[in-house]
Amino acid sequence: MNADENKMDRCVDSCLTCYRVCVKTAMSHCLEEGGDHVQPHHFRLMMGCAEMCRTAAHAMLVGVENHKFICGACAVLCDDCASSCEALDGMADCARTCRECADICEGMAA
Amino acid sequence: MNADENKMDRCVDSCLTCYRVCVKTAMSHCLEEGGDHVQPHHFRLMMGCAEMCRTAAHAMLVGVENHKFICGACAVLCDDCASSCEALDGMADCARTCRECADICEGMAA
Amino acid sequence: MNADENKMDRCVDSCLTCYRVCVKTAMSHCLEEGGDHVQPHHFRLMMGCAEMCRTAAHAMLVGVENHKFICGACAVLCDDCASSCEALDGMADCARTCRECADICEGMAA
Amino acid sequence: MNADENKMDRCVDSCLTCYRVCVKTAMSHCLEEGGDHVQPHHFRLMMGCAEMCRTAAHAMLVGVENHKFICGACAVLCDDCASSCEALDGMADCARTCRECADICEGMAA
Repeated sequence: MNADENKMDRCVDSCLTCYRVCVKTAMSHCLEEGGDHVQPHHFRLMMGCAEMCRTAAHAMLVGVENHKFICGACAVLCDDCASSCEALDGMADCARTCRECADICEGMAA
Repeated sequence: MNADENKMDRCVDSCLTCYRVCVKTAMSHCLEEGGDHVQPHHFRLMMGCAEMCRTAAHAMLVGVENHKFICGACAVLCDDCASSCEALDGMADCARTCRECADICEGMAA
Repeated sequence: MNADENKMDRCVDSCLTCYRVCVKTAMSHCLEEGGDHVQPHHFRLMMGCAEMCRTAAHAMLVGVENHKFICGACAVLCDDCASSCEALDGMADCARTCRECADICEGMAA
Repeated sequence: MNADENKMDRCVDSCLTCYRVCVKTAMSHCLEEGGDHVQPHHFRLMMGCAEMCRTAAHAMLVGVENHKFICGACAVLCDDCASSCEALDGMADCARTCRECADICEGMAA
């Protein structure tokens, strides 16, 4: 792999990790905690961020030329989700994973 | 439904139709024709556009606030895919569906 | 289209409708109602059924030969989800959509 | 994590790896080689297997109770894809990944 392929491969890693953490956290921690953790704004962000990360990874694996627009949209969702997680108990790992993925996706989108 | 919900519902319709036409056309017409129809640039666009349309629909069904960024990325992919389809035989329906979806997604992204 | 293609096309219709109704209902009605509607068992079924329906449709659009196994698994999830919906207020449409999709998927799986 | 959670976590790992290898191999090696590598039967299996693996992982992350039916369908697709890969040049890694995923999914489905 060359430098560009390595960079993209790390972005795929980050997106699949963020997808996995968001789905798992929403479907176990958030549903079991209830209350603010299942408040519509927060829960929609968790599921929307997970879907967007999964698709950004897919677009890079497929090799679509304009994946930078997809990575740009993914960075927005990841940042929104991180902010929402930071306001809740027991979501620090998810918040950090989203913030890292946002940074890496912004790097791909630039 | 109010006017905004109607607009979003039509965009979900358009994205799911475009997803369906792209996957079906790629996996039947393109694979059976071979030649230019399975040229990497074209085929990657078909699969990337299908995935992005499916996810734009999903984001709107989930109700993510910043879906406009996702719809914006979807419009780019749909336009790219339409242009690629227009250069090939037997792809007029797919090209038109992609172009319509691009227009509707641009309207959501604005 | 011949009879087999028509049958499969109707199954794709049913799966995409069920996917759409499950995601929309979970993310609007269930999250807004709260209480039993976001109880983990029910909510996981809603999201699992939605995903399985989306993928059964995808497998048929792709034209995978052994799609009957996927449709069989989809029928199980749709029936589980319908039963869970029937026990809650305001979920009659979702329950009926899941039950119809289960029947059509069972027909494809046979 | 207890023993059951560890087993499921390994199955999620295996499914996401198989998804990733199938999409990447289809969209780079197969499209670039052409010929038998884009023959409809083979290519549909590659894309169908990838989708099924991604969804089996999703169902386990969501925590759907009847995920064993989804893992069972995934094992069938992975075995079919492995056999198709074994008949082609340069697909040994993909074939092995599919065969391993089939075994692990069969273990979850039992």
